[in-house]
Amino acid sequence: MINELDFRIAEETDLDQIVQMLADDVLGSQRERYEQPLPVSYIEAFQAISADPNNELVVACIGDDVVGVLQITFTPYLTYQGGWRATIEGVRTASSMRGKGLGTELFKWAIERAKERGCHLLQLTTDKKRPDALRFYEKLGFEATHEGMKMKL
Amino acid sequence: MINELDFRIAEETDLDQIVQMLADDVLGSQRERYEQPLPVSYIEAFQAISADPNNELVVACIGDDVVGVLQITFTPYLTYQGGWRATIEGVRTASSMRGKGLGTELFKWAIERAKERGCHLLQLTTDKKRPDALRFYEKLGFEATHEGMKMKL
Repeated sequence: MINELDFRIAEETDLDQIVQMLADDVLGSQRERYEQPLPVSYIEAFQAISADPNNELVVACIGDDVVGVLQITFTPYLTYQGGWRATIEGVRTASSMRGKGLGTELFKWAIERAKERGCHLLQLTTDKKRPDALRFYEKLGFEATHEGMKMKL
Repeated sequence: MINELDFRIAEETDLDQIVQMLADDVLGSQRERYEQPLPVSYIEAFQAISADPNNELVVACIGDDVVGVLQITFTPYLTYQGGWRATIEGVRTASSMRGKGLGTELFKWAIERAKERGCHLLQLTTDKKRPDALRFYEKLGFEATHEGMKMKL
């Protein structure tokens, strides 16, 4: 357990640190664009997420430092007799914090949040190019029962 | 191409036929409950989907008959420089219509809808117990680049 770790909904003033984290990643470095000022597309997406009661951007902080992030989407479905699901996406932890259990703490928080929202299932997809992430999720209790399929538009 | 096939957003009067289709399925038969009157959980989920501008329940119809259904969720994400994604879930076609290209038409409609909404990516997860579905999605142009992980809460 990391001392003084705090979890909360992200604010717009956190966005710079969040985008830095997203870009500081093997796959993220190829598709993100961290620069000052931040590209407006990040700001617009942040505002769309914040305005949507079924989306929450969660940050893990130590004091003023944002050290982890993930997004939870709550979705009502007809399947499973009309059950709500929580979907997790955009998980990143600061490279300085790796191996300290931060990811596990962040997920514990997210699992509790999904339960609070009445979800019967928590789901995510993880790139097959991230074998370490797959093992991490399996250890948390996720099962790779599905193929995660993507189509670029 | 099937004659007189029509696509539209589902209305509450379609719900009975939709739930029948969800239950008439190898996996669905184990987890759905089709009965008259419909369990209230389906009606509540339908109303939550309809009230959410980022969720659309789409039906394929021939006259008054609902012969196909899927749900599209539009989600703003910070990743990919703040890109929106469309996620498809709860895809079913009436057993009487299998092998007639209905699934392909339904997906063509959904792909256009996702483009209209400005999504850069269309995604879904498919149960590894459905090898035929995997082949169908690959033929449509989806790639199984990710593991689809689930955790029951």
